[in-house]
Amino acid sequence: MRLLLLLLTGCLLQLPGFARADEALPSWNPGAVRDALIAFVEGASAPGSDDFIPEAERIAVFDNDGTLWAEQPAYFQLLFAMDRIRALAPEHPEWRENAPFRAVIENDMKALAATGEHELLEVVMAAQSGMSSTQFAGIVQAWIDSARHPTTGRRYTEMVYQPMQELLTYLRAHGFRTYIVSGGGVDFMRPWTESVYGIPPEQVVGSSSELRFEITEDGPRLLREPALHHVNDKAGKPVGIQRFIGRRPVFAAGNSDGDLEMLQWTTAGEGRAFGLLVHHTDGEREWAYDRASAIGRLDRALDEAGPRGWTVVDMARDWRRVYPAIPAEH
Amino acid sequence: MRLLLLLLTGCLLQLPGFARADEALPSWNPGAVRDALIAFVEGASAPGSDDFIPEAERIAVFDNDGTLWAEQPAYFQLLFAMDRIRALAPEHPEWRENAPFRAVIENDMKALAATGEHELLEVVMAAQSGMSSTQFAGIVQAWIDSARHPTTGRRYTEMVYQPMQELLTYLRAHGFRTYIVSGGGVDFMRPWTESVYGIPPEQVVGSSSELRFEITEDGPRLLREPALHHVNDKAGKPVGIQRFIGRRPVFAAGNSDGDLEMLQWTTAGEGRAFGLLVHHTDGEREWAYDRASAIGRLDRALDEAGPRGWTVVDMARDWRRVYPAIPAEH
Repeated sequence: MRLLLLLLTGCLLQLPGFARADEALPSWNPGAVRDALIAFVEGASAPGSDDFIPEAERIAVFDNDGTLWAEQPAYFQLLFAMDRIRALAPEHPEWRENAPFRAVIENDMKALAATGEHELLEVVMAAQSGMSSTQFAGIVQAWIDSARHPTTGRRYTEMVYQPMQELLTYLRAHGFRTYIVSGGGVDFMRPWTESVYGIPPEQVVGSSSELRFEITEDGPRLLREPALHHVNDKAGKPVGIQRFIGRRPVFAAGNSDGDLEMLQWTTAGEGRAFGLLVHHTDGEREWAYDRASAIGRLDRALDEAGPRGWTVVDMARDWRRVYPAIPAEH
Repeated sequence: MRLLLLLLTGCLLQLPGFARADEALPSWNPGAVRDALIAFVEGASAPGSDDFIPEAERIAVFDNDGTLWAEQPAYFQLLFAMDRIRALAPEHPEWRENAPFRAVIENDMKALAATGEHELLEVVMAAQSGMSSTQFAGIVQAWIDSARHPTTGRRYTEMVYQPMQELLTYLRAHGFRTYIVSGGGVDFMRPWTESVYGIPPEQVVGSSSELRFEITEDGPRLLREPALHHVNDKAGKPVGIQRFIGRRPVFAAGNSDGDLEMLQWTTAGEGRAFGLLVHHTDGEREWAYDRASAIGRLDRALDEAGPRGWTVVDMARDWRRVYPAIPAEH
C-alpha cells in the first residue's frame, strides 16, 4: 500500500497537466525565448531524455536587481539606505557637515551621484550596521511593508517581474531548486524573498557585512559591523555560489555585466546548462537601458551571449506583462 | 483525485510506523537522553502540539569532528593534509629545510605538536591550495576512498558514529533539514557528506579559504588561494549559521568548546530548541577525553550544559554501538 502511494505521488509530479508550459508561463509571449526555456526545463526533468539532469543537480540561480525586480532610478537597497539615513538624521547632527550624508538627507540625487563609491559605501554601511541581525531584519521588513517607489508609487515588492515569477514557479514544479545570487545585501533580501519569490532565506546568496557574536544582558546576539565580508558581484558571484551552494548551477539568469562571471561559470560545466539575460528594452512599461547605463550596465555580457549560446530576453518583445496586477483592495 | 492523493501522502508522513523512535534509534540505549530526543522530535513535528515547530523552521545543525565522526588522534582533515604533503614532497625539496613540513614528511607527531598554530596552518594551506575547487574535490574524494585510520585501520568514513547517523535520519523523517556546521574546511567535507551522512553540499557550513575566479585556456575555474576567508569555529559558528542559513536553528549538536557559541545561539531563540553535547566517555570503544584534551576540549560547554538545559550524551552509557558495522565484502 505504501509503495503504491509513493508510485502514485511520483506519477502525480509527472502529469502533463501539472505544469504545462503555456499555462505555467502565461506572461511570456510565444516565440523563441519561451520555446528555449520550455525545451530546457522539460528535457532536464524528463527521465530517459538525453537532456535529463538528476534532480539534485537542478540548481537555478537568479540575480535579483534588474532580473527579478526593477532597479531604476537606483538600486532599491540604496533607496532603503537613504530612507534609513533620513530617519536617523535627527540623532546625528554631525551628518549635515558630511557631503554624502547631506546629499542623502536633502534627497539631492545629483550631489549623491557625484559622490565617490567609497563615500557612498560609508553611507550605506552607516544605515545598515550597529544593530543586531534580528533588529535589522525587522527594519527591512517594516520598510518593505510601507515604502513606495518614487515614480510608480508601487510598493517595491510589486515591482517584481511577473514573467520571472512564473519562471521561478515553473522551474520549481520541475524539481529545480531556485536560488538568488545577488550583489545586494543578503540580509536585506532574506526577510521577504520567501513570501515574494517563494525562495527561503537559506537559498539567498548575497553580499554580506562582518558579524560579531556577543553575549549581552538580553542573551547572545549577532552585531552587524560597518565592514564588508563578501562582495557578491562580478567574479564574486561564482565564488559565492561555490561557497554557499557548493555545486555548479545548471541554470543562471542575470541582466548586467555584474552577472557575466556567474553565467560563464554556470554554462562551462560538463552537462547541459542554460544562460538567460534579461535585456531592458522596454522604455514604456519599464526602463530601457543597457551599454551606457550606470545602473545595470549590460555590455560585455551582451557581446558574449551570442558566442556562448545564452538566451537574451527582449523585454518589450517577449513579455506580455511586466509587473503583477495589484490586488483591488490595495 | 489529486487532493485525495495529497491527503494520503500527508497521512503517510504521519503514520506512526514510519519512523517509530525505538526503531529509528536502535543504537541508542533506552534512558533519559534517548527519551529527551524522542520527546523533542515528536513534539516538534506533531501538528496541534504545544511544542510544534513549523517545518520551515526545523533546522538542525551538527558539528562534524567528534560529533558525527571521530577526531582522534588528530582531526582527520589534518591527517589528510599530512598525507597530501607527503605525496607532494618529492616536488618540494625545500620543505625538508622547513621544520613543520619536515615533521610532517617524517611523520614526527611530537615535533608537529610542538609547532606553532601559525606554522601548522601554513602546512595545511600548502596542502589545500593552488588547485581549482573541482580538482580539490577529486583529491579529497580519492583520499576518502582509500586512506585508513592509523589505529583502527578503518576507512575514515567508517568512523562515523552510528547513533548520530540514526539521529540524522530520524530528524529528517520528521521534517527537519540537517546541516553540518563544522570548524573543518567546507570543501574538505562536501565531496562525501551526501553519500555518508545524507547531507548535500549546500547544507554544509564550514571554514573556507579565499577563492579566485579566473578564465584559463580550459575555461573558467575557481582557484583555491592560501588564505583563510572564514573560520567557522567558536563565535564563528553562529556567524556562519547566519551567513549561510539565515535562520536560527532549533536543534544543535556538538562535542567541544568550539560548539559553545553555536549551542548558546541555537537555544536562545524564542521558541523551543534542543542543545545536545556528545561527551567522549568511552575509552574502550573510542577515546575518553574532555577538559584537558588539546583536540575537542570540552570544558566551558560542559559547565554550561546544566544551567542551560542542554542534554549531555554519555557515550559509554547511552550508545549501544559506536561505529557502523563494516560490510563483509569490504
